[in-house]
Amino acid sequence: MINLECPIPKFDFDVITLGHGSGGLLTHRLLQSGVFSLFSNPLLDLQHDGATLTLEGRIAVSTDSFVVSPLFFPGGNIGDLAVNGTVNDLAMCGARAKHLTLGFIIEEGLPITQLWDIMVSIRQAAHTAGVQIISGDTKVVEKGKGDGIFINTTGMGPVHPNANISHQRIQTGDKLIISGPIAAHGIAIMSLRKGLEFETTITSDTQPLCFMAEGLIENFGASVRFMRDPTRGGVASVLNEVAELTKHGFVLSQTALPIHEQVEGACEMLGLDPLYVANEGIMLAVVAPEIAEACVALLHNQYACPHAAIIGEVTTEHPGKVTIKSRIGGRRVVNFLPGEQLPRIC
Amino acid sequence: MINLECPIPKFDFDVITLGHGSGGLLTHRLLQSGVFSLFSNPLLDLQHDGATLTLEGRIAVSTDSFVVSPLFFPGGNIGDLAVNGTVNDLAMCGARAKHLTLGFIIEEGLPITQLWDIMVSIRQAAHTAGVQIISGDTKVVEKGKGDGIFINTTGMGPVHPNANISHQRIQTGDKLIISGPIAAHGIAIMSLRKGLEFETTITSDTQPLCFMAEGLIENFGASVRFMRDPTRGGVASVLNEVAELTKHGFVLSQTALPIHEQVEGACEMLGLDPLYVANEGIMLAVVAPEIAEACVALLHNQYACPHAAIIGEVTTEHPGKVTIKSRIGGRRVVNFLPGEQLPRIC
Repeated sequence: MINLECPIPKFDFDVITLGHGSGGLLTHRLLQSGVFSLFSNPLLDLQHDGATLTLEGRIAVSTDSFVVSPLFFPGGNIGDLAVNGTVNDLAMCGARAKHLTLGFIIEEGLPITQLWDIMVSIRQAAHTAGVQIISGDTKVVEKGKGDGIFINTTGMGPVHPNANISHQRIQTGDKLIISGPIAAHGIAIMSLRKGLEFETTITSDTQPLCFMAEGLIENFGASVRFMRDPTRGGVASVLNEVAELTKHGFVLSQTALPIHEQVEGACEMLGLDPLYVANEGIMLAVVAPEIAEACVALLHNQYACPHAAIIGEVTTEHPGKVTIKSRIGGRRVVNFLPGEQLPRIC
Repeated sequence: MINLECPIPKFDFDVITLGHGSGGLLTHRLLQSGVFSLFSNPLLDLQHDGATLTLEGRIAVSTDSFVVSPLFFPGGNIGDLAVNGTVNDLAMCGARAKHLTLGFIIEEGLPITQLWDIMVSIRQAAHTAGVQIISGDTKVVEKGKGDGIFINTTGMGPVHPNANISHQRIQTGDKLIISGPIAAHGIAIMSLRKGLEFETTITSDTQPLCFMAEGLIENFGASVRFMRDPTRGGVASVLNEVAELTKHGFVLSQTALPIHEQVEGACEMLGLDPLYVANEGIMLAVVAPEIAEACVALLHNQYACPHAAIIGEVTTEHPGKVTIKSRIGGRRVVNFLPGEQLPRIC
């Protein structure tokens, strides 16, 4: 059991300066005065330009840059978001993230206390997901040429032997499952930006999805056809992408879509359609119809997902399109979002 | 043989907007209208959130973010720099980069023609180094919150079976070898920033080092103790880091250090010590004394490195320090650079 209490070490500076990205003495001091020990493991401790490890078999690899603004928000910060984001991209490939690289682009002037809080969150999230930080890089840009901190994470890990996840395996009649209520992450950020955060208790749903994804694959193998975490652009964008690639029709049921009342209210107030709002801790799965109920039951009972539900199915109608049946029985097309609804959400 | 001529496709926009980072229709169009086909390969073509591949044995992994300013400079641009940088970090671990991820953070307003030129350079550099682009991510930040484009590359590939590269293996009496003249990259950038570029023909040395590194390991195995490409902070910073880690003394010979006359002149004019100036296409190796001459001969004869030279050795004097013997026989300590000499050099 590692100790996750990490009091900030004594740094001899208050803010990050350009020199901390120089590769010289200040970079060296920044890393040696706490960062290396925070993430300490045998691979990182060698302090070479790269890490060397032994891998066997089928491995998934994914990369993501995080530019969320503000850096700290209800339920998380850019640090745990950056870890969970890549852990989840791998989980959606049927893989368990084992190793993660970190690339920081810091704007000159970032308070060291903020950097430390972010680092501690990275460590905590990595520990929760069971992933090791193996290599990193720090760059610093002038004030006004960045925005606090941007973080790239690239993760890798073994694909589950029973996994066979591909949009090409989706068939007519398959069911769409969602693991939790939609739109919480995007609305947590937007509430903060719009100054609504004191009127609601909405928090980001950022969390690792690897355990529940592995549970589904472990139990149902190749009957889990496809998985994706609906982040930027929300459920609507993921489904539109898949609809275009597969030429299948996807029909959603409005009444089946789980959403927290406060989130729905905030969406109305902000003029946002929750189908397009980002999520950072829910999973969208396309599964064979015969296992759909059992998948939902597993999510309910084993993975603390009380709102998991079947939210739609794959049809021959409207090929290549996503449609939704409204509460009163009407049907409308859910298009690709033409522009940007929520910039810098992750 | 792939075709490396890549005329710019017809994009229906001139500059990158926030919507191109939304994950919605514009992101989709940007990727589909040329980017995916530019990097096409079976892994990338699946267009999942991550790539799945089969790896066996010892693998090296390295990550680096590139924030060079300006984006285009004599001898290269941020695109080939980002590929070569990570290819070289892996080469210095004794590994050959095989797979690369790309993470873009683009500032709103970047002209699409610039983005395309950078993408084409990435493709060209990846082709030259024999590395496959397997996964990517694009984020867009508001004008004034970034600087044109930042690129993260994370690479992985097999470690050569004969490689045993570690600072812990460095011994007293080992020789320091450099593969080419120092300080060209940093001075190419600085000349441009200071408006001196028309007075010189200095170009960046950005290039892949994987072939020459592999040649040394193939021929001399574990007698190659340590390798590092002296990028940010130059030769002086790398050696200081290693001196501190190993507690060995490192002594350089000023007369043996290769440097182009124009670069040396520009350093004097700009008040820069070339030992601290960044390189992006040379290798610093610490090798057993008995193979030092043969290493240099191999670099001369097989890898078109006419300036490769033995530039110093590992001593018991001044443990943990780097010193240099001057042209007139004096000796001075080469310290860690206290601050930032050249911001945003890579």
